[in-house]
Amino acid sequence: MAKVVTFGEIMLRLSPPGYSRLVQADHLEVTYGGGEANVAVSIANYGGDAAFVTKVPANPLGQAAINHLRRFGVDTRYILRGGERLGIYFLEHGASQRPSKVVYDRKGSSISQVQPGEFNWEEIFQGAKWFHFTGITPALGDNVAAVTLEAVQAAKKLGLTVSCDLNYRKNLWSPAKAQETMTKLIQYVDIAIGNEEDAEKVFGIKAAASDVTTGQLNEEGYRQVALELVRRFNLKMVAITLRESYSAFDNGWSALLYDGKEFYRSRRYQIHIVDRVGGGDAFAGGLIYALMEGFHVRDALEFAVAASCLKHTIPGDFNHVTREEVMTLMQGDASGRVQR
Amino acid sequence: MAKVVTFGEIMLRLSPPGYSRLVQADHLEVTYGGGEANVAVSIANYGGDAAFVTKVPANPLGQAAINHLRRFGVDTRYILRGGERLGIYFLEHGASQRPSKVVYDRKGSSISQVQPGEFNWEEIFQGAKWFHFTGITPALGDNVAAVTLEAVQAAKKLGLTVSCDLNYRKNLWSPAKAQETMTKLIQYVDIAIGNEEDAEKVFGIKAAASDVTTGQLNEEGYRQVALELVRRFNLKMVAITLRESYSAFDNGWSALLYDGKEFYRSRRYQIHIVDRVGGGDAFAGGLIYALMEGFHVRDALEFAVAASCLKHTIPGDFNHVTREEVMTLMQGDASGRVQR
Amino acid sequence: MAKVVTFGEIMLRLSPPGYSRLVQADHLEVTYGGGEANVAVSIANYGGDAAFVTKVPANPLGQAAINHLRRFGVDTRYILRGGERLGIYFLEHGASQRPSKVVYDRKGSSISQVQPGEFNWEEIFQGAKWFHFTGITPALGDNVAAVTLEAVQAAKKLGLTVSCDLNYRKNLWSPAKAQETMTKLIQYVDIAIGNEEDAEKVFGIKAAASDVTTGQLNEEGYRQVALELVRRFNLKMVAITLRESYSAFDNGWSALLYDGKEFYRSRRYQIHIVDRVGGGDAFAGGLIYALMEGFHVRDALEFAVAASCLKHTIPGDFNHVTREEVMTLMQGDASGRVQR
Amino acid sequence: MAKVVTFGEIMLRLSPPGYSRLVQADHLEVTYGGGEANVAVSIANYGGDAAFVTKVPANPLGQAAINHLRRFGVDTRYILRGGERLGIYFLEHGASQRPSKVVYDRKGSSISQVQPGEFNWEEIFQGAKWFHFTGITPALGDNVAAVTLEAVQAAKKLGLTVSCDLNYRKNLWSPAKAQETMTKLIQYVDIAIGNEEDAEKVFGIKAAASDVTTGQLNEEGYRQVALELVRRFNLKMVAITLRESYSAFDNGWSALLYDGKEFYRSRRYQIHIVDRVGGGDAFAGGLIYALMEGFHVRDALEFAVAASCLKHTIPGDFNHVTREEVMTLMQGDASGRVQR
Amino acid sequence: MAKVVTFGEIMLRLSPPGYSRLVQADHLEVTYGGGEANVAVSIANYGGDAAFVTKVPANPLGQAAINHLRRFGVDTRYILRGGERLGIYFLEHGASQRPSKVVYDRKGSSISQVQPGEFNWEEIFQGAKWFHFTGITPALGDNVAAVTLEAVQAAKKLGLTVSCDLNYRKNLWSPAKAQETMTKLIQYVDIAIGNEEDAEKVFGIKAAASDVTTGQLNEEGYRQVALELVRRFNLKMVAITLRESYSAFDNGWSALLYDGKEFYRSRRYQIHIVDRVGGGDAFAGGLIYALMEGFHVRDALEFAVAASCLKHTIPGDFNHVTREEVMTLMQGDASGRVQR
Amino acid sequence: MAKVVTFGEIMLRLSPPGYSRLVQADHLEVTYGGGEANVAVSIANYGGDAAFVTKVPANPLGQAAINHLRRFGVDTRYILRGGERLGIYFLEHGASQRPSKVVYDRKGSSISQVQPGEFNWEEIFQGAKWFHFTGITPALGDNVAAVTLEAVQAAKKLGLTVSCDLNYRKNLWSPAKAQETMTKLIQYVDIAIGNEEDAEKVFGIKAAASDVTTGQLNEEGYRQVALELVRRFNLKMVAITLRESYSAFDNGWSALLYDGKEFYRSRRYQIHIVDRVGGGDAFAGGLIYALMEGFHVRDALEFAVAASCLKHTIPGDFNHVTREEVMTLMQGDASGRVQR
Repeated sequence: MAKVVTFGEIMLRLSPPGYSRLVQADHLEVTYGGGEANVAVSIANYGGDAAFVTKVPANPLGQAAINHLRRFGVDTRYILRGGERLGIYFLEHGASQRPSKVVYDRKGSSISQVQPGEFNWEEIFQGAKWFHFTGITPALGDNVAAVTLEAVQAAKKLGLTVSCDLNYRKNLWSPAKAQETMTKLIQYVDIAIGNEEDAEKVFGIKAAASDVTTGQLNEEGYRQVALELVRRFNLKMVAITLRESYSAFDNGWSALLYDGKEFYRSRRYQIHIVDRVGGGDAFAGGLIYALMEGFHVRDALEFAVAASCLKHTIPGDFNHVTREEVMTLMQGDASGRVQR
Repeated sequence: MAKVVTFGEIMLRLSPPGYSRLVQADHLEVTYGGGEANVAVSIANYGGDAAFVTKVPANPLGQAAINHLRRFGVDTRYILRGGERLGIYFLEHGASQRPSKVVYDRKGSSISQVQPGEFNWEEIFQGAKWFHFTGITPALGDNVAAVTLEAVQAAKKLGLTVSCDLNYRKNLWSPAKAQETMTKLIQYVDIAIGNEEDAEKVFGIKAAASDVTTGQLNEEGYRQVALELVRRFNLKMVAITLRESYSAFDNGWSALLYDGKEFYRSRRYQIHIVDRVGGGDAFAGGLIYALMEGFHVRDALEFAVAASCLKHTIPGDFNHVTREEVMTLMQGDASGRVQR
Repeated sequence: MAKVVTFGEIMLRLSPPGYSRLVQADHLEVTYGGGEANVAVSIANYGGDAAFVTKVPANPLGQAAINHLRRFGVDTRYILRGGERLGIYFLEHGASQRPSKVVYDRKGSSISQVQPGEFNWEEIFQGAKWFHFTGITPALGDNVAAVTLEAVQAAKKLGLTVSCDLNYRKNLWSPAKAQETMTKLIQYVDIAIGNEEDAEKVFGIKAAASDVTTGQLNEEGYRQVALELVRRFNLKMVAITLRESYSAFDNGWSALLYDGKEFYRSRRYQIHIVDRVGGGDAFAGGLIYALMEGFHVRDALEFAVAASCLKHTIPGDFNHVTREEVMTLMQGDASGRVQR
Repeated sequence: MAKVVTFGEIMLRLSPPGYSRLVQADHLEVTYGGGEANVAVSIANYGGDAAFVTKVPANPLGQAAINHLRRFGVDTRYILRGGERLGIYFLEHGASQRPSKVVYDRKGSSISQVQPGEFNWEEIFQGAKWFHFTGITPALGDNVAAVTLEAVQAAKKLGLTVSCDLNYRKNLWSPAKAQETMTKLIQYVDIAIGNEEDAEKVFGIKAAASDVTTGQLNEEGYRQVALELVRRFNLKMVAITLRESYSAFDNGWSALLYDGKEFYRSRRYQIHIVDRVGGGDAFAGGLIYALMEGFHVRDALEFAVAASCLKHTIPGDFNHVTREEVMTLMQGDASGRVQR
Repeated sequence: MAKVVTFGEIMLRLSPPGYSRLVQADHLEVTYGGGEANVAVSIANYGGDAAFVTKVPANPLGQAAINHLRRFGVDTRYILRGGERLGIYFLEHGASQRPSKVVYDRKGSSISQVQPGEFNWEEIFQGAKWFHFTGITPALGDNVAAVTLEAVQAAKKLGLTVSCDLNYRKNLWSPAKAQETMTKLIQYVDIAIGNEEDAEKVFGIKAAASDVTTGQLNEEGYRQVALELVRRFNLKMVAITLRESYSAFDNGWSALLYDGKEFYRSRRYQIHIVDRVGGGDAFAGGLIYALMEGFHVRDALEFAVAASCLKHTIPGDFNHVTREEVMTLMQGDASGRVQR
Repeated sequence: MAKVVTFGEIMLRLSPPGYSRLVQADHLEVTYGGGEANVAVSIANYGGDAAFVTKVPANPLGQAAINHLRRFGVDTRYILRGGERLGIYFLEHGASQRPSKVVYDRKGSSISQVQPGEFNWEEIFQGAKWFHFTGITPALGDNVAAVTLEAVQAAKKLGLTVSCDLNYRKNLWSPAKAQETMTKLIQYVDIAIGNEEDAEKVFGIKAAASDVTTGQLNEEGYRQVALELVRRFNLKMVAITLRESYSAFDNGWSALLYDGKEFYRSRRYQIHIVDRVGGGDAFAGGLIYALMEGFHVRDALEFAVAASCLKHTIPGDFNHVTREEVMTLMQGDASGRVQR
């Protein structure tokens, strides 16, 4: 498979054990993650060739972040070292009516201080067919948005497919700022991915009659959102994940996809959650992998939904599943019987 | 907020990790708890001023118990040091059809040996508006019942509101003994709190047609219980928590409250449980806090139920939630969506 | 109670913590287990007299396996020491749609190299009334099948009741090989136990219209299987456990039993699973214990199903429950209310 | 080897991890131990036949204590179940200049409430050749001293060798009380064991010119102590362990033995300590085992000192070493080279 | 005892377990610490009245830092909440020839952004007799230096004794910058404390003929340093701790003190180290406490050195020892014998 | 730096925590290691380019071993997947007089079943300058010895430098068998490395007057060994590590090197050990790296000894140190002072 390149931030993730809260913790579980890094790991896990581009500090934490990516097969050769710190996020796992809680401590991270010209995108994209980023990356600062623009322009010029997970983060920027920046970037995007809120927050395109806090989703509304995104930005494909949040433990999970011609609606999974962080990234990673592998769109969507369903059962941001495991679920065996 | 004082026992709580049983454990998780201590922590967590009164041994375990209370903002200045030991309880977490199991090892604890005259209640109640105790405290021995009587008499004399969580413990005393002792103490009580069994065990007031072991509860029966408690003991308010035990993992949770004029019935939560110990105490803590803060009775009940619903999702006896988190749930967002 | 003897392999079991996968683990939780060892522990736990026969290496791992059995009251005096290694199995706990995964590393284990004549069955069976083995043991190799044959012949000669849990393992042998070997052994068996797949895999007796991967089970079909097993092999009793696998977390669990005269169908439990490995062994252990204790067949079946329901709530292969705990559940209290 | 019987208390031992203090701990490591139990485990570890006699409560903690003994091969069939609680001790591991600290919570334990007549010593001593107890047991109360007297009288009558580790515990009794009680019991003792303080505390026999708090020990003084003990109580043998405490981490360790004819002085070990609790018990266990195995007195002493040296390197009260490992050290290989 | 106020930064401290390096860690141990916070905890531990002043973010990490201080008895009422983040430091424990390694991630912390006027020093110093800060605080930025100047001026005006631990941190400022800032602040200082390097780094006063990397210290040189500090800045007292670093495990530890009249040289301890971070703070805390308690200067020095010797044996920044434990060591018992 | 290739076995390493023994463990710490893998990681850690060649099973354990190598920067592209199992070794950490103990469970591992022709050595050695193996690899079986012969022949043909760490393992082969096999292989070796025992065990070349079990080493004897190795096998260089084993905690560590012209004797370190497994491999890794980097032989030796000294302070087989850290120690700073 040709190379996929993703670009963004990787953070140290620190979580209290089990369902403890931060004020109770006397140790924190360590892993590393971030939207685009998670996508790269997904693809590498299935046997694909994925490189992740970022900047980390030249200290043991930056090294450990790189090591964590290498461990799971991601090509880290383009990662720069320098700057002041590695971004951190603290994650409390929710339970039942208590939501999971993320405390970000990412300000001043090395990647957030990167300047245009630091990455040699032409070299990075050598041998690559696909570039992926999320809305989090340009939200890190105007400088990072400018670097993202360099990246998508180079990608387009070199003929790569460009995908973007809209991924709105309200603590990083306002809807107005997001719309201003993302409108520029989306010109270079072929495939947009979003969850049930992103299109509204980033582009003001609202699905009719859904309320994400009650778990009631209106499928027809989301079809309209997809249609409008394709229309407005001349996209080749839009995929929208649909999470029905009954509680921190129980979610419905499915997605729809519009390829400019047809609508596809995936199977819907009822998930009892272990760790839902990275669920959307696992969807994006699955979709990119399947499309690059030449799956029919319908199958690519099912692969992506099955993959991201499985992500909810695995601790950490990364989706440690094999292609075979995803295929088994996608083909209908959700019985959870012991595999000996 | 004026000060709330609670009085009772704090114990070292030791639990095997996860769902292991005591015979499997090679380490035990440490926390500290006890009915009235849990109430004090709840109130301190919301930003209230709460003091806990007890006696602990002058050794590292007594110190650790005090430290644990201080850590979560409780005023510990009135705690006496002396006596022989800190009470302990061992807790195995149940799962599905297997119930949680508590092994008490509290006999001979410092507080159980306390004598009338040891506490200077007039000084303790300086600046306080509320005194809370539970039926566990007088059950520790006639001496402790006598000290409790000192406390409620002083509280009444100084104009404090007095609340009591009936909290019947069959391994500490018989129904007959409980009725004898509690009948004396309840003369000084303004607000009684109980679960679906307490009124029957302590005062012989039984709800018609409920069976706690099948999870079937008869709301009308509990209204009669509340009415009868108010009538018989001239109480200002009675609140009854209603637990529907489907399994060790899944419970329904709600409450009703009668203020002598109207009945209020709370929202009902379906909870997938992390740790249900301290659930009733979280209800009492929420109710006292909300009433002291001037909430309408209806809202105070909803605050208390939402607070105690959240308690079931947090490991340990203490309810580590903020006022804002309770308000969010009370106002209807139970979706458990990640808070970033 | 007279002695029960079981014979088979005990393995070191290594599991990543919680729901982590093997590629994530930096420590592994240790326990020991194996079908027949698990049965012996169940019986010892209820207060019965159970001996386990196997061969383990003369090294600290073999010693630790013996220690683990002794700890839970099993008579280990007949265990041989020698050979090259202790078998190991790695277990990843599944969650929701992700199945549990077992990686066996048992080849070359001491017991798999045992030769006829190494065990003195006449001495081992002194004072015993019951011998139990599973289909796993003869599957370890022709040599072990030969030793198993020695055992059942000696058991029959000495008048013991012989039970066999068919327990087909596809990674150990083919259905054809299983049928060839098991057909010889079952001549000496009084009571056969199986799950919803075993009779088909081992003897080609298929239940009509069930699909284990969808959780749809056809009770009538299993009655036919039981009838056919009794008929074909002249058995005194056949018990079949019926697992409805909705997901790795949620299973239905029940059993049916045919004693040659009547069919008994047990209560059905909806289980939220902690650890399902050893569930079938807990059923066998409960059944053997209850029958030896003189329970009526109907009650023995309910005891076995309640016992194995509880097993699903306990980490590890062994069923750490008391007779009293099983009786409480069997008599209908599945409310999971805290036992203080 | 014929059976050794030991009698005393087994406690739940709870320790903060590493060098943490109790006020810092959020989990405690679990093991079980007690002077006489530790001796029984030592002997069982070497392959000897050892039974431990005590009383534990009929609850999961009592069961866990029994399980821990069974796990390491001790015969627990004579242990009574009943009474109120299992004794507990909390152990903080010292480091460098900071001493280890033990907080006892053993009051009211089941064994401390035992009454004369509860144990059938004639049955217990069937097949036994040796009975061992320590000064801790009679210190638990006059009732336990009376039961100990029953035991030693029965042992003498049945021809067992009786050994006693003087083991003075200042928090259990005064020197005066100890002397009164122990003077009666020592009439039935053949072999006394003590550390550098015991003879003085229990019998007022002081070694000249030693100061245990500076680590300076005067060997000649201890010879006089041994001589005087043999003379005064007509003992067959006296062994005294000599600990030179330089710090919580570094101790010198050796022993001397007087058999009424000759003095033997052991090799002296410089130990960097992992866990020194149970060091004296490991000495007693090694000495008893070696004497029963027919070692020459000189070799028995060296075996006991080498065994107890190794105990200092193993976490927990129990001495998990094999006979071969002790022999290797006793024969001079203290190089600590990796054994592959 | 009258109140001591300390002012500075408290950080989240994260350490890999045992002697692991950061690149190996999959969990990090959590504690909280910082020079002045550590001093406050020391004093509170001995029973003194200590308040710590800082600013932490209004998030769960800021709350957890406050909780950690409250837990160990420090008055936290003057701590401000706001700003962006809690400073963090990562600590790898060294071993033998490998040094401990600290990775600071404190930039942008709430306290580092504090502005003059935010603290009401007059209110804070009500009832206080002593103010303590370290050279780390003004090094956080000119704004923090200005706030520190406010504090020392207010303290002087209100008649408090002011102490300063010079504590030079090369990653926070240059010697030139330190000298410029500290020269202003030291005008208000009564007692200066430093280690073997600080006077040189901060004021250019070098001890003759010592080399800290070889562990060779020249006592006479340090006497000259103390004399010069007193002379130049008109101090009442100077104390210098003397660390002889043989390895990451083994250090010599002692101190000298000059009170303007006499030189005092403390006992010298050979320490096998558990955790040396906070050793200097434990010295300062011990010295302040002892001086406030009216110890003779010679005894205060010995108390401070014994206290800080013990700190090296305890995990974490805080010195969890009691006054009694320090007195015992100070009076000469360094044998490390178990305290039962 | 040009590429170094190493060839051998990587095993799953399982250790009880701290100083626990295997019979006590209820969890095992996981890492991966093996002589040649450890060398590859050392070189990658310093920034060199290192590939490791082996065969692992196509299961999660094989994947985890590969991941562990990738994590630390080793090129794993030539690793084959197949065969039956991953070798395992269990390691108990020794303490003081108790030696560390290794229990191997490596029989039947995938690499031990490899056949000549499976590896394409010409392709593997493309771009490589150095090939390293140890005496463990050919000891795995005649087939593996044959593959090793393929490797060294290809390496010689392609002009690589070949180094061999003799590394005699008595549980894998006899001295006679070792000598027969190694004599063939050493024809292709340029640089031999050994410890104080290897030359004797493998080639019968004994150092005069040393006794490894007492820690007494005779330097002159080892010079003779080096001289004889160079002479007999026409080597370019021989390095011998010299371990003085005082105890499991304390070792002296140094090395000597003979380059056919001069003898070099390294600095000698007194190490207080954390984990000594992999010490020799860290020496080899340091030596190869330094020689490839063009260090003078004297400096290369000092680099190798300093590097391996540091290895003793780090848990696991791998030497997680940077080039800078080694240089600092090599240049004389062994003070262990905190690096901030």
